Amino acid sequence: MKVTVKNHTMMYPAPAVVASAYDDEGKADACTLAFAAMCSHHPPAVMIAINSTLKRKTLADILKTGEFCLAFPSADQAAEVDYLGIESGYDEDKLAKISYNHKRAEKVNAPVIEQFKVSLECRVMHVCEVGSHTQITGEIINIQADEDVVDGRGKIIFEKLNPLAYDDITHSYYRMGEKIDDAFKLGLKFRK
Amino acid sequence: MKVTVKNHTMMYPAPAVVASAYDDEGKADACTLAFAAMCSHHPPAVMIAINSTLKRKTLADILKTGEFCLAFPSADQAAEVDYLGIESGYDEDKLAKISYNHKRAEKVNAPVIEQFKVSLECRVMHVCEVGSHTQITGEIINIQADEDVVDGRGKIIFEKLNPLAYDDITHSYYRMGEKIDDAFKLGLKFRK
Repeated sequence: MKVTVKNHTMMYPAPAVVASAYDDEGKADACTLAFAAMCSHHPPAVMIAINSTLKRKTLADILKTGEFCLAFPSADQAAEVDYLGIESGYDEDKLAKISYNHKRAEKVNAPVIEQFKVSLECRVMHVCEVGSHTQITGEIINIQADEDVVDGRGKIIFEKLNPLAYDDITHSYYRMGEKIDDAFKLGLKFRK
Repeated sequence: MKVTVKNHTMMYPAPAVVASAYDDEGKADACTLAFAAMCSHHPPAVMIAINSTLKRKTLADILKTGEFCLAFPSADQAAEVDYLGIESGYDEDKLAKISYNHKRAEKVNAPVIEQFKVSLECRVMHVCEVGSHTQITGEIINIQADEDVVDGRGKIIFEKLNPLAYDDITHSYYRMGEKIDDAFKLGLKFRK
């Protein structure tokens, strides 16, 4: 039987990713967010949404510079990722607190955080206010990845990245599980 | 060592969700998509992006009616979900092919697919063309869930929903794994 549950934004699964940008003085800021998705194949683009009702220094930086990096953390980095979501860059040098290093991205003016295995370098295409959040669409200009998570064809190996997932309803981090099957094949049986 | 990988949209993890809407004749259409995220808490809202360069009947329906449902499939529904992503609603009655039932949502003019355990009822707030995709932001008007995935406080139980994940790089479906820890707690140790 279906029941009605209280209205709350939800997505299953949702990622826990880290956006990073430079402030006016060239200091690197970073914040964790779960409101993120792919949104175009051509050009490759991602959408992120950051709470604009809270003090979010990384959001202010992205809107000023028009560029940002988006990193995909691994499950074993959950504590560091959680800290980057709790603390404000206005109060602390968060990356220094977790002893994470960064350097300028190759193609955009934003910091790549070295300890994260995969980072997208993005340029803002579109900004839209949606309720409590600022929704930013970014074109993916360049992608950097640790050599050990990339296969011989230049593709990210899901199991080696071992991405971190987040549940916004119970405020919990999750690991990913095993592969079920190949897409665009599994459903063909219903064509018969 | 970091290496540069070919530009491609990616999100780790990404969901495999199903959008549904009615066409002009009141026929229910549904399509699978991985480009989806939460995008506002107040009001609760989600963003979905659907390929506008392919023939996508559900996309046309949503743009006409201004309303849609978004369902979160379980891992054991991967084959049905895959079929809903392969076939076009212009060619087949896809829901009939997989023997899934539907009925009108409580608060919007769109079909809720009964076999999916959790469905958001959404009203379009904003539409934006982003490269190959049409990005649609929808306010969550109502949520229906199977009684057995809802706890005593009206919250979705992640493990009972057992959501389906998707990797757009290798075109693979994945299960979710175990809970790591609580958010907004795990990272507090770095405050010391």
